[in-house]
Amino acid sequence: MMKDKNIRQQKNSLDIDQTGHEMYRLIEDLYPICRSITGNGVRETLRKLQQIVPVEIHEVPSGKKVFDWTVPKEWNINDAYVKNSKGDKIIDFKKSNLHVLNYSIPINKTISLDELKKHLFTIPEHPDWIPYRTSYYNENWGFCLSYNQFLKLKDGDYEVFIDSSLEDGYLTYGEYYIKGEISDEVLISTHTCHPSLCNDNLSGNVLAIYLAKYLSQISPRYSYRFLFIPGTIGSITWLSINEAKIVNIKHGLVVVCVGDSGRFTYKKTRKGNADIDKIVTHVLKHSNNNFKIIDFFPYGYDERQYCSPGFDLPVGCLMRTPHEEFPEYHTSADNLEFVKPENITTSFSIYLSVLNILENNKTYLNRYPKCEPQLGKRGLYQKIGGHDNSKSFQLAMLWVLNLSDGYHTLLDVSEQANIDFKLIKEAADALIEHKLLKEVTA
Amino acid sequence: MMKDKNIRQQKNSLDIDQTGHEMYRLIEDLYPICRSITGNGVRETLRKLQQIVPVEIHEVPSGKKVFDWTVPKEWNINDAYVKNSKGDKIIDFKKSNLHVLNYSIPINKTISLDELKKHLFTIPEHPDWIPYRTSYYNENWGFCLSYNQFLKLKDGDYEVFIDSSLEDGYLTYGEYYIKGEISDEVLISTHTCHPSLCNDNLSGNVLAIYLAKYLSQISPRYSYRFLFIPGTIGSITWLSINEAKIVNIKHGLVVVCVGDSGRFTYKKTRKGNADIDKIVTHVLKHSNNNFKIIDFFPYGYDERQYCSPGFDLPVGCLMRTPHEEFPEYHTSADNLEFVKPENITTSFSIYLSVLNILENNKTYLNRYPKCEPQLGKRGLYQKIGGHDNSKSFQLAMLWVLNLSDGYHTLLDVSEQANIDFKLIKEAADALIEHKLLKEVTA
Amino acid sequence: MMKDKNIRQQKNSLDIDQTGHEMYRLIEDLYPICRSITGNGVRETLRKLQQIVPVEIHEVPSGKKVFDWTVPKEWNINDAYVKNSKGDKIIDFKKSNLHVLNYSIPINKTISLDELKKHLFTIPEHPDWIPYRTSYYNENWGFCLSYNQFLKLKDGDYEVFIDSSLEDGYLTYGEYYIKGEISDEVLISTHTCHPSLCNDNLSGNVLAIYLAKYLSQISPRYSYRFLFIPGTIGSITWLSINEAKIVNIKHGLVVVCVGDSGRFTYKKTRKGNADIDKIVTHVLKHSNNNFKIIDFFPYGYDERQYCSPGFDLPVGCLMRTPHEEFPEYHTSADNLEFVKPENITTSFSIYLSVLNILENNKTYLNRYPKCEPQLGKRGLYQKIGGHDNSKSFQLAMLWVLNLSDGYHTLLDVSEQANIDFKLIKEAADALIEHKLLKEVTA
Repeated sequence: MMKDKNIRQQKNSLDIDQTGHEMYRLIEDLYPICRSITGNGVRETLRKLQQIVPVEIHEVPSGKKVFDWTVPKEWNINDAYVKNSKGDKIIDFKKSNLHVLNYSIPINKTISLDELKKHLFTIPEHPDWIPYRTSYYNENWGFCLSYNQFLKLKDGDYEVFIDSSLEDGYLTYGEYYIKGEISDEVLISTHTCHPSLCNDNLSGNVLAIYLAKYLSQISPRYSYRFLFIPGTIGSITWLSINEAKIVNIKHGLVVVCVGDSGRFTYKKTRKGNADIDKIVTHVLKHSNNNFKIIDFFPYGYDERQYCSPGFDLPVGCLMRTPHEEFPEYHTSADNLEFVKPENITTSFSIYLSVLNILENNKTYLNRYPKCEPQLGKRGLYQKIGGHDNSKSFQLAMLWVLNLSDGYHTLLDVSEQANIDFKLIKEAADALIEHKLLKEVTA
Repeated sequence: MMKDKNIRQQKNSLDIDQTGHEMYRLIEDLYPICRSITGNGVRETLRKLQQIVPVEIHEVPSGKKVFDWTVPKEWNINDAYVKNSKGDKIIDFKKSNLHVLNYSIPINKTISLDELKKHLFTIPEHPDWIPYRTSYYNENWGFCLSYNQFLKLKDGDYEVFIDSSLEDGYLTYGEYYIKGEISDEVLISTHTCHPSLCNDNLSGNVLAIYLAKYLSQISPRYSYRFLFIPGTIGSITWLSINEAKIVNIKHGLVVVCVGDSGRFTYKKTRKGNADIDKIVTHVLKHSNNNFKIIDFFPYGYDERQYCSPGFDLPVGCLMRTPHEEFPEYHTSADNLEFVKPENITTSFSIYLSVLNILENNKTYLNRYPKCEPQLGKRGLYQKIGGHDNSKSFQLAMLWVLNLSDGYHTLLDVSEQANIDFKLIKEAADALIEHKLLKEVTA
Repeated sequence: MMKDKNIRQQKNSLDIDQTGHEMYRLIEDLYPICRSITGNGVRETLRKLQQIVPVEIHEVPSGKKVFDWTVPKEWNINDAYVKNSKGDKIIDFKKSNLHVLNYSIPINKTISLDELKKHLFTIPEHPDWIPYRTSYYNENWGFCLSYNQFLKLKDGDYEVFIDSSLEDGYLTYGEYYIKGEISDEVLISTHTCHPSLCNDNLSGNVLAIYLAKYLSQISPRYSYRFLFIPGTIGSITWLSINEAKIVNIKHGLVVVCVGDSGRFTYKKTRKGNADIDKIVTHVLKHSNNNFKIIDFFPYGYDERQYCSPGFDLPVGCLMRTPHEEFPEYHTSADNLEFVKPENITTSFSIYLSVLNILENNKTYLNRYPKCEPQLGKRGLYQKIGGHDNSKSFQLAMLWVLNLSDGYHTLLDVSEQANIDFKLIKEAADALIEHKLLKEVTA
C-alpha cells in the first residue's frame, strides 16, 4: 500500500535519470507538430501522449458558450509561404511552423513589399530569432521571420500563400483521471496550444504525462486529474462543462516552463496559504536548487481561471523561469537546445517530492502525551539502525511526539522543526511501528 | 456627481499652485495676530477664516466643566514692555507678541534686574531667537527674549508693564460642517491657539480652511466636520459638549505643521489599522515625497483627546516635521521664511489624495466571477484609448476583477496589486461602464 | 503588603552582592558531593539546601511506575579506583567523582589494558579535562579521565575497583511551596543530579534556593513551588504523582547554567506567547545584558516534560550559555573557576526582575477615560518629586492612562510604550494614589 509509504523511497527505485531521457525524447517527438488552441496538431499531440498513459480525448464544438466566452472555430493549416518575384520561397512554413501567424486565415495573392510588411513580425533585439505570434480572436493573417531576413527584403512583388482553414469544428483537450483511495483530488493542468516551442510548453506536457504514468503505477491516496488543454479557453471550457467536479479539487498545480536551466519559481495560489503553497515552499526550501516564491497575480497561465473569485481553487504554478523573463520566450530560440534532459529530470524530481508530501501529510496523536515516552527501552534511542545521523533522527522523533497533539500535520511538524519532511516521515513511521503514534482520522 | 468621480481628476482642474499662493497670503495675513487659547486674537483669526468659508463661531463660558477640566478665564492683552532706567523700551510686545509669556497676568512695577531675571525666558542654544512660552494654568507673568539681548542687560531698575486681563469670558472656537450624501463624517481638526508662529500652526489652519473650501464646492459622499480650536482644552471642550455627534466620526485627521520642508510624518490612530491609517500610508507610499509612519503615542496634539480610551476615535495626525523635531519649533524662527508656499501646496495635494481615496474606496462585485470575462470582445483588451501604458491598465482591470469578491475595497485591491489607487479607480470605472462590476451596498 | 509594591524597590534594600557571595559559597560547599539521579549525594545536597529554607524531602520507591517510565534502582558509591601493576592508584574517585561513569555497577577485578580501554572515556579535543558520563538505564561500568592521562597508560594488568551499589531504594527530590494570596502558582524547577559540576547545575540550585528565601520573606501574590529534582526522571516522577496540582501552574521557569559569563538565553515555552515568554523577553530587553531568545524545541532540560503535549505548561528555560554550547559543558572544567559570583548575582537580579513583573502585572481601568484627566491640578504634571526625569515619568503616566481600558496589562502598556516595566509600575502607582486608576478584578 502506497498510502503509508514514503513515495520518495519508491522514487529511488524509479530510475529518474532514465525517465528524464524518456521525457526529452518525447519532447523531440512532439516538437515538429504545429499546435494551436484547436485543430489537428492538438489531436496528434494527444495521441502521442496516449502512448504513455491512456489520456481521454474530448471534443467540444465551436460556438459552445463557456461562461463569458465562446468556443472558437477550429483552425488547421497545411502549408504557407512567401515567394519573391523570382519564385523563390523566402519564407516557408515547412521549415518552421512559427513562420505563420498562428490562426492566420487563408490567403493567396501577390502584393507589394510595403503591403507585405504590414503582415510581418520580427524581433529586432534578437535578429536571428523568429517570433511566435497569434491572432485567435481577431481574424488576420501574417508571417513571422528573423529580423536579419526581414532586412534583406527588396522592393518588388511577393506571392503570399496560406493554405489554412478556420471553420466550425471542435476544441480538443485531453483528460486523465486516476482514482485514489479518496475522492478528494489533485489537479495537474498543462497547456498544449503552442507550436514548436520546447520550454513553453512541451516541457510541461511531458512532465505531466510522466507524473501521470508514475501515479498510475502506485495506488495513491488522493485521486488525480490531469488536464492537457489549450491556454485560457481550455481551462474556461473545462471549468464550464465540469462544474460539478470542481468541489473535489483540494490541491492543484499548473505545469509550465520546467525544462530551462533557471531557478525554480513558485507562484502561490490566490489564497496564499493553501496546503499546496506550504508544500511546494517546503520542498523548494529543502532542495538544493535556487528558487523564488511569488504571490499570486491575475496574469500568467491557467491559474488565472482556476483562481478567479468564483472558484478560488487552491491551484499554484510551479515553473522554472516565468514567461517573459527569459529572452527565448515565444521565439524560435525556445528550441531543443534550450531545454535539457537534466533540467526536466530535476523538475520531475521536485514534483515527485511535492506529491510525496501531499500523499503523506497526515495528522497523528501521540499515544503517550504526558511527558516523553521512554524511547530507550524500545531501542529507539542511541541505537537506531540504518541512519547515518541517529541524533538528528532522535530529534525528529521528539518533534513528532511533541507536536502530535491532533492539531499539527507532519508538514507542520517539519516546518516548526525546520527538518526535511522526509526525515520527519521516517521518524513518524518508526513511532507508528512502536505504537507510539496513531493517525487522526477526520 | 462627485461620488462616482475620481476627485484627483477634479483636482487637476483645481489650480493647486494658485491655491498654494492663496494659502500663503492668508498665513501672512494671520501672522501678526496675538492668539492664545482664549481671547480676541482667536476671534479675529476666525473672522479672517470666515472670508474663505462661513465657519461658525462658538463661545463657551469660562468656568464650564468639560470632563475633568474647566474652561479657563479669558485672556486678552493690549500692550506690554520692559523699560530700562533710561526709559528705553528694551522689550516691546508691539515688536513681537512672543515677547510676552502667553497668559501673563497684568503687572506694572519697577524691579531690580535680579528680580526681573526670574521672569525672563531665553534659548541659549539659539541666541538670536525669542522663545514661545505659556502659563495657562498657573497664574504668572513673564517676558521672552533672545539670549543675546538677555546678555546685554545691565544692573539697575526696570519698569515692567503688562496691560492684560484674565477674567471670566469665553473660550472661542470655529466649526464648519459640510453635509454629504451620508451622515458618516470625516473630522478635520486644527489648533488655533498659537500667536505669531507660522508652521505651528497657521500652516495647519490655512490648509484646513482651503480643504473646506474645496469640499464645499463639490458634493462629497461623506459629511465633513472642520474644527478650529485651541489645543487640548479646545478638543476636550468640543468632545464634552458634542458627545451625541461623536458616533458619526468614521475617519479623522489632525492638521499641523504642514508648511516646513521636512519629510511627511503620519502618526497613526490609536487603533493602528484604521481605514485612515491605510489610506494615508497608501498615499504617502505612492507620492514622490519622503515620509515616515509612526505609531500612536499619547502625546502631541489633539489626537491625544480623540484617541483617549473612552472615545478611541480613528483620528491620525498628518504633518511634516513633528513638534520638537525642528529647532525652530516654538520660537520666533518659526516665521514667514520658515514656511514656503510650495511646501503648503504639496501638503494640500497629499491631503486631497487622502480625501480622494476616502470618497472612492468602495467595494464591488465582479459580475462574472467564474473565470475571467472576455475583455477583448468589449474593446478593453489591447485597445484602450487615452492610456499611455495600456498593459498596466489591463493588469489593473484584472486585479479589480480578481479581487472584487465583496470582501476587498478598491484600496485593498490597490495595496495587494501594489498599484496606485488612482489607476485602480480608473480600471474600476471602465469595468463599471461595461457592466462587469457592481457596487456592494451595506 | 508586597502585592502593591514594586518588588524591585525591595530588591534594592536586599544586598544583592551579598546574596551573590552567599550563593557562591554554597556552590563551594556543594561542589565535592557526588550526586546522581538517586542516592545519598542527593540527600546530602538537599540537607544543605534546607539550611537556607525548609525544603521538604520526598522519597519515591524504586520500581514505581511513572507514566511510561519506572523509578530506577538507587545508586550509591563509596570509592573507586584503577591501580596499575605497581599498585599505584592511577585513577582515583576520591580525587574527582567525575572519574567514575555515573551509575557504574560494582566491579573488582584485574584486566588487561585493552579490556580496560573499552571502559574508559576521554575528550581528545580538551586533553586536560575529565569528561562527565552516565549510564543510567543500561547497566555498565567505566572510568573517565583526561586524554593526556589516557595516553600515558602502558600495557599491563590493571586492577579496577568500584565500590558502588545499585539496589532497590528511592528517588529523592526536594520541594518547597510558598503559599501566596492566590492559589495560582509559579513553578521554579532545577535539576540536582549532576556531581562536581558547577554551572550545570549547582548554579541553578543555589539561585533557586535563594529565590525561595527571598520570596519566603515577603508575602507574594502568587504561590510559588520550587522543585529540586533529578533531570528527566525527576520531573516525570513529580508530574506523575502530582497531576492534581498541575492545574494551578500558571507560569514556570527551569533554572540552569546561570553562573557562566555568557549572554543570557531564554528558551520559550511550547506555547511561544505565554505571559512568562513576554515577561522574560521584556526583562532581558530592558537589562544591560546581551541575550538571545530561542523557540522551544523538544530537547534540553525538564521543560521537555513540562511542555509535553499532554501538559503543555507555560514553562520556559532561562539560562546563560545553553548546554553543549560551552566547551566546559559536562567536563571537569565546569568547576569553581568557571562560575563567578558576579555572574550568579546578575542572573539572580534578572530572575528578581521577572518575579517583579509576574507579581505586579495587573490590569487597570482609567477612571477618566474620556479625554485626558487634568494631571496639572493634581500636581502630577511638571512637578513630580523624586524623579530625575519627570518628562519620561509624565509620558509613562499618559501611556498608562491611555491603555488602561481593561484590555491591557501593565506589561502590555510597557511593551507598547517601549518603557521599562519599573517606570510604568511607578506611574501606575502614582495614578492609583490619585484615584485615577482602579484595578480590574477577574
